[in-house]
Amino acid sequence: MRRHRDQVRMSTPDPTDVHPAWLPDEAWRAIGVRRILVCGEATLVDTVQAEVERATDRYGGAVWRSPTDADLPPADLVLALTGAPPPDSPPAPEPGPPETSGTLAATAVATAKAQLDTATAQVGESLGVEGFAVARHGGVTVVLADAPAGLLYGLFELVRLGEAGFGPTHPVRVHRPAMARRMLDHWDNVDVHPVMGQVERGYAGGSIFWRDGRPRGDRARVTAYARLLAACGINAVSVNNVNVHATEARLLTERLDDVAELADLLRPYAIRVHLAVTFAAPVVLGGPPTADPLDPAVRDWWAETTARVYARIPDFGGYLVKADSEGQPGPFSYGRDHADGANLLAEALAPYGGVVHWRAFVYNHRQDWRDRSTDRARAAYDHFAPLDGRFRDNVIVQVKHGPMDFQTREPVSPVIAAMPCTRLAVEFQVTQEYTGQQRHVCYLAPWWSEILRFAPWGDDGRTVADVAADGGGLVAVSNVGDDRFWTGHPLAQANLYAFGRLCWNPRLGPQAVLDEWIDLTFAPDTRVDPDLLRRTLHEIMDDSWRTYERYTAPLGVGFMVRPGHHYGPDVDGYEYTPWGTYHFADRDGVGVDRTRATGTGFTGQYPPPWSERYESVETCPDELLLFFHHVPYGHLLHSGSTVIQHIYDTHFEGVREVEAMCRRWEWLARLVDPAVHARVTERLTEQLRSAQEWRDQVNAYFHRKSGIPDAHGRMLH
Amino acid sequence: MRRHRDQVRMSTPDPTDVHPAWLPDEAWRAIGVRRILVCGEATLVDTVQAEVERATDRYGGAVWRSPTDADLPPADLVLALTGAPPPDSPPAPEPGPPETSGTLAATAVATAKAQLDTATAQVGESLGVEGFAVARHGGVTVVLADAPAGLLYGLFELVRLGEAGFGPTHPVRVHRPAMARRMLDHWDNVDVHPVMGQVERGYAGGSIFWRDGRPRGDRARVTAYARLLAACGINAVSVNNVNVHATEARLLTERLDDVAELADLLRPYAIRVHLAVTFAAPVVLGGPPTADPLDPAVRDWWAETTARVYARIPDFGGYLVKADSEGQPGPFSYGRDHADGANLLAEALAPYGGVVHWRAFVYNHRQDWRDRSTDRARAAYDHFAPLDGRFRDNVIVQVKHGPMDFQTREPVSPVIAAMPCTRLAVEFQVTQEYTGQQRHVCYLAPWWSEILRFAPWGDDGRTVADVAADGGGLVAVSNVGDDRFWTGHPLAQANLYAFGRLCWNPRLGPQAVLDEWIDLTFAPDTRVDPDLLRRTLHEIMDDSWRTYERYTAPLGVGFMVRPGHHYGPDVDGYEYTPWGTYHFADRDGVGVDRTRATGTGFTGQYPPPWSERYESVETCPDELLLFFHHVPYGHLLHSGSTVIQHIYDTHFEGVREVEAMCRRWEWLARLVDPAVHARVTERLTEQLRSAQEWRDQVNAYFHRKSGIPDAHGRMLH
Repeated sequence: MRRHRDQVRMSTPDPTDVHPAWLPDEAWRAIGVRRILVCGEATLVDTVQAEVERATDRYGGAVWRSPTDADLPPADLVLALTGAPPPDSPPAPEPGPPETSGTLAATAVATAKAQLDTATAQVGESLGVEGFAVARHGGVTVVLADAPAGLLYGLFELVRLGEAGFGPTHPVRVHRPAMARRMLDHWDNVDVHPVMGQVERGYAGGSIFWRDGRPRGDRARVTAYARLLAACGINAVSVNNVNVHATEARLLTERLDDVAELADLLRPYAIRVHLAVTFAAPVVLGGPPTADPLDPAVRDWWAETTARVYARIPDFGGYLVKADSEGQPGPFSYGRDHADGANLLAEALAPYGGVVHWRAFVYNHRQDWRDRSTDRARAAYDHFAPLDGRFRDNVIVQVKHGPMDFQTREPVSPVIAAMPCTRLAVEFQVTQEYTGQQRHVCYLAPWWSEILRFAPWGDDGRTVADVAADGGGLVAVSNVGDDRFWTGHPLAQANLYAFGRLCWNPRLGPQAVLDEWIDLTFAPDTRVDPDLLRRTLHEIMDDSWRTYERYTAPLGVGFMVRPGHHYGPDVDGYEYTPWGTYHFADRDGVGVDRTRATGTGFTGQYPPPWSERYESVETCPDELLLFFHHVPYGHLLHSGSTVIQHIYDTHFEGVREVEAMCRRWEWLARLVDPAVHARVTERLTEQLRSAQEWRDQVNAYFHRKSGIPDAHGRMLH
Repeated sequence: MRRHRDQVRMSTPDPTDVHPAWLPDEAWRAIGVRRILVCGEATLVDTVQAEVERATDRYGGAVWRSPTDADLPPADLVLALTGAPPPDSPPAPEPGPPETSGTLAATAVATAKAQLDTATAQVGESLGVEGFAVARHGGVTVVLADAPAGLLYGLFELVRLGEAGFGPTHPVRVHRPAMARRMLDHWDNVDVHPVMGQVERGYAGGSIFWRDGRPRGDRARVTAYARLLAACGINAVSVNNVNVHATEARLLTERLDDVAELADLLRPYAIRVHLAVTFAAPVVLGGPPTADPLDPAVRDWWAETTARVYARIPDFGGYLVKADSEGQPGPFSYGRDHADGANLLAEALAPYGGVVHWRAFVYNHRQDWRDRSTDRARAAYDHFAPLDGRFRDNVIVQVKHGPMDFQTREPVSPVIAAMPCTRLAVEFQVTQEYTGQQRHVCYLAPWWSEILRFAPWGDDGRTVADVAADGGGLVAVSNVGDDRFWTGHPLAQANLYAFGRLCWNPRLGPQAVLDEWIDLTFAPDTRVDPDLLRRTLHEIMDDSWRTYERYTAPLGVGFMVRPGHHYGPDVDGYEYTPWGTYHFADRDGVGVDRTRATGTGFTGQYPPPWSERYESVETCPDELLLFFHHVPYGHLLHSGSTVIQHIYDTHFEGVREVEAMCRRWEWLARLVDPAVHARVTERLTEQLRSAQEWRDQVNAYFHRKSGIPDAHGRMLH
């Protein structure tokens, strides 16, 4: 126990090396001055104790630990499990608190006791394995949980509340996560990939887990990461890239110890480890010479291999598989389908409570651009919808939020509404592959929030968030690397934080989440104007995703990026490639006809009302017009502008907004850590250059093609 | 001497491993059956002896060696130096020939002696250090040379002649190279470069010189390469990439032994080694902290360094420098110009007879595509023409043949006509960076021949070949790698061979050179129809460059390739980049206005008549129209076609021609080595696919932009 607590205590990285993100010491001040009682017996309760001790060590409070609330010492903050302690082996009580204990008034003890009893009574229903309740009365704040993880989350809720957690009396507030599984996928390679590097689509340096073929070995960094994730609610991490190369394949077998080491570091923060595996694992790891999911020898191999995984990592989360996609092996090689493939692994995991995340990102990446009948947007639905009902209970079909690939703007994937009898997880991309690669400010929570609130069956129906909550939860590709700011761009930390928070509660407003993140991260210094900092960050970040959309690909058309690295503009870059990503711009118009009437029929994959709204150019939302329709440049948008003038206007406007961001960030020069300020300034300089490049290329491209001048006479090149 | 001859004899690679290119054993048959006398004393004469001995070993002839022609044994082939032997240390005569000597008729001895005397008398003027004379009379063939290298070249001329060298009597024919220096630049890296690989723009596997940071160590391969080069006339090789990275920089100093080892292998074939050096060498190799060419310490460093080079490699050729170009360091950093930079190195090399090849490939590779006044085509002239007369005698300014960068079609560089007081070398690219990357058949000699015959001052004036011959000769980037066929595509061997032959004699017709190459390489088997082989190869290769031009970028516009790797089409790939490579296509027209009247003024860099011919859209040759002019799609070419219809027609035609190539190659299935046939078949399959892709992308691009349908109603996508 002491070793565990020491590990936790030592996990804050040296501030000169690694930025504390949303857990700076200052965020713990309100807790650190309290007299705290921690009640309960579990590893995660040890974590809670260690966390509050670190705070009190710094700010002068005190901590008691008791396995139960039976013998309540004086406290003004109580964190307690509601359940009875395990009947066996109650550990010896730890030594009482030091001299400070004598200063506590006897009334406080009685108040706390009463408050705890009242709160417990009020909660009534079960809090679940991760829920908690917070209440305050008579000067005592109480956090209650039925299970240890809930207590940990309750502690981090208190951190978020800060002084507000210790103000006027308030009745019991219950918090339960909307999603049972809140997961991050790391696209980290163990070996440095010759093209993709250490982290595929990583924009924040190397991996915090791996380096040059071996574990990176920085245990403090991984623990610090686990704290950050727990503090925003993440409870599952897949530790290697979904494109599983030779070395990475062996994590499942001979290099399982490397995975177990990460599991040991993440476990104290209630995070389970998942592993991306190759479907060809039996073949490439010395098992049977086939990976055919219906072959008994293959089933045996997976059963035995999985048994060894759980023997080593009893709380292992499960497997993540990208199969028959972009060159990865899969069941198609054996004439089987995705259900056969996913169920094979699910069967092996079922005895241990593990799950398979099976990605629905399947399409033909060797499409002939000349063939306008094939539509990549259709692919996931065409592959997976017919399989609904055939997946085992512990299969989670992981669906990218849009039908293409994490563009700045896409419609919601129709797969999300197409598989009522399947557990679906919705996948986001926190790493900014197509949204500025952490060189551009692009706060993504407004985009995710739109998606989560989208109602595929119409305004009265369930939302995307509901589907995920009832199914496999949310998953996102991590944006973290060994960069000192974790995410390259310091403001990109907000995306990671917001993803976790939206998993917990998808109804949170993006601006409210940003407020939380600002308060925690910048722990506003009272010497300066806290409102200026908060207001300026909102001005820079709130609308930054829409700003990015304005100066990049217009009206939902997508994929006007440089092939390969996906940074910067190249309007025709993907136009004649096998990737299925086209805009079909010609001298008369632009856009992809995906209607049933005259196009690829993709609109028919949606239930009403969207199947109708998207089908008609009259009712299709402006921002998705070119995703669903090929229209003339003179087509009038609902906004009142023509398509071509909209392109010009938004591109000029987007750059002006970036210029404003730069000016506003200047104002904060003395309000934030100089290192943060310098890094953001450097990135903003590049963002402005890049935004101008986008503006000028996109405008020049469409001007040369359409021949239509800007209505305001601006330079178009 | 024995060791040297053994080395030569052992240098033919195992035929199952490495293709013999244009020196198969069969090519030596006519020589191998002779009774041969080799007269003269020099390392290169040893090479001649070893070569003919290898042939006679195989085909039953015999060889005598004598330091002079004084004591003439019976022979029907005499290879002799005209000059007196060195006065000192005449080596002991080697043992006489074996039993075969007795069978020679006494008359033959007398005839040979008389023939030799006559030939010597007829030659009259000096043959020079590399020239030779061939004569045949009375059944004796005589090759004479003033200097050893000439004898070696005379021997390879005899190989070319084959039986024709031993037919009817003919008078003396004198051969002298047009160019004194006939050079290949290897863009081989010592280390594997993370982006460019072992050989930059190499399409034939790894380097024959280097592997993974060390010498490759295959001495037999390098010797076999030297033979091939000598057989086509190359006499200088630069052994490392002009982009000099960290490891490669050290070849000049601590790793000089690696260079000396290559020099030792190339020397027996009269090939001098050159080295690409970084202008920053003093700084990066531990010399003075500056590379300022006017700093005395820098001059001293280069003098001392160069002295060490010559102490180790007495016949070292000199330095090759890419300075202030595409990120390479140069004199600009110190406020000096290219003459200052080149003269610095020239001064260090002068005492030893070495030369500096200083590349004129200098331009702004960070150009703003929005700025239409900057013209990359102007850059070399603008940088170098003003420096004419300022370079030392042993500086060779190395000018790419065109003003851009080895495109399929460019005008001749105006620099070639702009520096009368400077020694210029003209640079070609044998490696097919922009001409199909040795996956496409593209016989380049017709293109080079056009360039060499081009007369910048008008039809009565000197040609490009004349300028090079009077100056620094010709240089080309090698297309060779450790591939078993040397060049990836077996038919690409013809480009290397033809480059050497055009260096020797730029007036040779490309088809005649191809005939030589076919006869040597395929040594037509008399059992089958030799005419079919020859005719078919001509049908495939003669026009293959123009075929390639037809299905790729039209009318001289260039650079419609995928950025980075430069393979395959991407019409807008370079359009909005910093590389200065634009076509300015819009809905109305295409092309770059480089006129003085309304464009960048590039036409003014030419002397009359070309300054006028290129200036006018009326007189500009069709094939360069879009290089010099921006014209409407409906513009009528001299050919009678419009620009847009020309684009469509040539692209359809080019693909049809590739289809014909494929059919023709099929006919040769049983006439050539099965391994060669299989490799070429594989490449043709890819060429056809790629040509179709070019056709469809280019046609679709211009159709979408212009809106003009094909006059013949073909599918344009």
